[in-house]
Amino acid sequence: MAQKIGIPKGTRDFNPEMVQKRNYILNIFRKHFKTFGFQPIETPSFENYDTLIGKYGKEGDRLIFKILNSGDYLKKANTAALLDKNTAELTRSISEKALRYDLTVPFARYVVMHQNQIVFPFKRYQIQTVWRADRPQKGRFREFCQCDADVLGGKSLWQEVELIQLYDTVFKDLCLEGVTIQLNHRKILSGIAEVFNFKIQLGDFMVALDKLTKIGIEGVKKELLQKGFKEKTIEKTLSLFSFEGTNVDKLSKLRQILSTSTIGLEGIADLEFICEKLEFLGLQTIELMVDITLARGLHYYTGTIFEVFAPKTVAMGAIGGGGRYDELTRIFGLENVEGIGISFGLDRIYMVMETLDLFPKQITSSLQVLFINFGEKETLYAMQIITQLRNCGIATDIYPKAIKVQKQMQYSHKRNISYVVMIGEEEIQNQTIIVKKMVDGSQKKLYSTEELLTFLNIDNR
Amino acid sequence: MAQKIGIPKGTRDFNPEMVQKRNYILNIFRKHFKTFGFQPIETPSFENYDTLIGKYGKEGDRLIFKILNSGDYLKKANTAALLDKNTAELTRSISEKALRYDLTVPFARYVVMHQNQIVFPFKRYQIQTVWRADRPQKGRFREFCQCDADVLGGKSLWQEVELIQLYDTVFKDLCLEGVTIQLNHRKILSGIAEVFNFKIQLGDFMVALDKLTKIGIEGVKKELLQKGFKEKTIEKTLSLFSFEGTNVDKLSKLRQILSTSTIGLEGIADLEFICEKLEFLGLQTIELMVDITLARGLHYYTGTIFEVFAPKTVAMGAIGGGGRYDELTRIFGLENVEGIGISFGLDRIYMVMETLDLFPKQITSSLQVLFINFGEKETLYAMQIITQLRNCGIATDIYPKAIKVQKQMQYSHKRNISYVVMIGEEEIQNQTIIVKKMVDGSQKKLYSTEELLTFLNIDNR
Repeated sequence: MAQKIGIPKGTRDFNPEMVQKRNYILNIFRKHFKTFGFQPIETPSFENYDTLIGKYGKEGDRLIFKILNSGDYLKKANTAALLDKNTAELTRSISEKALRYDLTVPFARYVVMHQNQIVFPFKRYQIQTVWRADRPQKGRFREFCQCDADVLGGKSLWQEVELIQLYDTVFKDLCLEGVTIQLNHRKILSGIAEVFNFKIQLGDFMVALDKLTKIGIEGVKKELLQKGFKEKTIEKTLSLFSFEGTNVDKLSKLRQILSTSTIGLEGIADLEFICEKLEFLGLQTIELMVDITLARGLHYYTGTIFEVFAPKTVAMGAIGGGGRYDELTRIFGLENVEGIGISFGLDRIYMVMETLDLFPKQITSSLQVLFINFGEKETLYAMQIITQLRNCGIATDIYPKAIKVQKQMQYSHKRNISYVVMIGEEEIQNQTIIVKKMVDGSQKKLYSTEELLTFLNIDNR
Repeated sequence: MAQKIGIPKGTRDFNPEMVQKRNYILNIFRKHFKTFGFQPIETPSFENYDTLIGKYGKEGDRLIFKILNSGDYLKKANTAALLDKNTAELTRSISEKALRYDLTVPFARYVVMHQNQIVFPFKRYQIQTVWRADRPQKGRFREFCQCDADVLGGKSLWQEVELIQLYDTVFKDLCLEGVTIQLNHRKILSGIAEVFNFKIQLGDFMVALDKLTKIGIEGVKKELLQKGFKEKTIEKTLSLFSFEGTNVDKLSKLRQILSTSTIGLEGIADLEFICEKLEFLGLQTIELMVDITLARGLHYYTGTIFEVFAPKTVAMGAIGGGGRYDELTRIFGLENVEGIGISFGLDRIYMVMETLDLFPKQITSSLQVLFINFGEKETLYAMQIITQLRNCGIATDIYPKAIKVQKQMQYSHKRNISYVVMIGEEEIQNQTIIVKKMVDGSQKKLYSTEELLTFLNIDNR
């Protein structure tokens, strides 16, 4: 009756080592989300079809996983669509639920639905799985974890300052050095469009710009030409992007060029505020870089935008990003709620940490102490000590069978166990405890459980 | 453009308070799973259709959520089934994936798939969401979290001892007193069937017995009569169930009655071993009760079975359970792997904790310190202190706008904040910090960030 086994493409099993490493990162996220005043919420894995559909563009709709209605769903199926084999129409009649595609839309739905219980400004974080029917490829999965922090209902620029500090604190705690945050402002891009006379084509411009790192400056030029931009406009505009110098330098040059654009100057003033405050308060590890080539695809951003990049030594794209948006909740009927949010890319941060060997060794040795099993009587004796060790938070176990000691030692090596304790008949009689440190094979004779506890605690530092 | 909003029936939004309370419980589970030597794994939310279907009986198959294939799924649809409106047949042709229904089958699939990387005995825990298209009702949801710990590949009775100790340790740490564990053995039930001559009807007997708490002893009698049991057999059998006394008493009476049944005596010997060892090692809070009326529905159990009950003061069914099973992995082609597992019912434990008011107060006050916002200059000054507090792990925030102090105080009350810090122009000049303790309104003047840190740490104990 055996059957072929596997898992759906784009999904993953996580073994104990992976889960522990992922939890190590997630716990650091949670710790700092909390100290920065963010509160956790969780939303259901699936939402009503209508809550999600239409929120991510046509391509997004296609990538949303739909859940078949339970029971005899064909009874209520759209017969015409069925006979025509009109998949889109049929889907609406046989599927009322869909798996979460991101955390942003469910968050907006949550806020609108519970607006009377929420105290604004609402700083929430959310760490949950999302699903996308994307073509799986390296580093891109159909099921993955998103980690978002947003502030809704408030428009202070201090929020930008804080969110950059939050990134800084998290990467500092992860010991991940060399992270860069690129900073731009949608109003600066609007200002450029205003000054160079392509306001109505700003959308096309941003789409092309967003591909800069992928297709290079020549690629962007080509795309803009195709979209009907004038050669001269393109040249002038793209010359802006070779700005060099400090953030202050870049912003003051930009101030001259955009001097006739009110909206452009607003964007510049915002970035000046942010850079100035962070200069004064100091950052611990990340480098903040104003980069006016940063566009970010998501159309709902309206103010500051940022993107976080791994150290240059690791070939990995953005490991996080975010920005300020207006009116996220309008789609669900709640107006005038401004917000700002950032996101951490767990999978990519994991890969960077792995590449740079930044995971502390101890997180993957899940068992600290293994007692050798010498038989029934010895086990009963050992279990008293094991119970005490466990009560003190030390991960302890006894081998489940009294097989040859050598085999039990082999198991200890495979499981990467730190200490092996041996209490045979002789040790019970003499009231002694033999403890072996696996890393160097050294042995010690101890005379009480208290001594063992002290030894393990001291030796573990 | 506003639309009606809601979430699918049987699902839940969790607000910050709920998430924090759930995490409080889950972290206690994780902590002790770890000290008892269990390692975490995680499996994908959806599995291949064939991995799940047929594993939970007909009723189970119906309750599994199926995911529609992406893209133009009708192209590959079974046309005959489509025209016949044969839902079951059509489903197989338009859905290749289904949401996890429990953690046991994915675990079995995981073990078989990764058997060459696993060191046996494999002690794993798994805390993940599962989905069932059940009719929602009080305490039963379509999306909920399962928390399982299993040992695969080992058959020592010490595992039973340990798992009961694990329950004991977790409930002790949750401060949940009065929990009872009922203990029985499938071999004892087999022994009873042997002695009273209904071996071939053991299945019917267990199904009826499983309903004992729901339909009472008379209900069980009625059902057994319907199934063709003889009145006399029923009387004799059910008389066993009025056994009273200590576990030792019950087991010794049972030993006499089942003296002719080899299998029955094996079951008794197992329970004697477990009770004896736990008597010697001592339990901290739970009461262990041999109860031969315990059947547990799941057909895969073959040895010890147990069920965990909330304190009698709370009307709540089982809050956990488990047992020993053979051959869980056989369905995926791996033979001779014995195992034992237990499960914690998060939702029900949560409800019990809520009813008995056992959640520590501090876990729901997510923000410890709020700084009053007096304007730009004061905010910049305050941010230096806030950064230091956050670096020390103290959840700190500043109100995002310089509105009236009274309004900011109102916000602090609503957010249940412990301390409010006020640093206005005067305080900046005098280098002082005013801190207000919200619980009693008392105020203190401090002279440095270090003093503030000391005050918060001492005062928080």
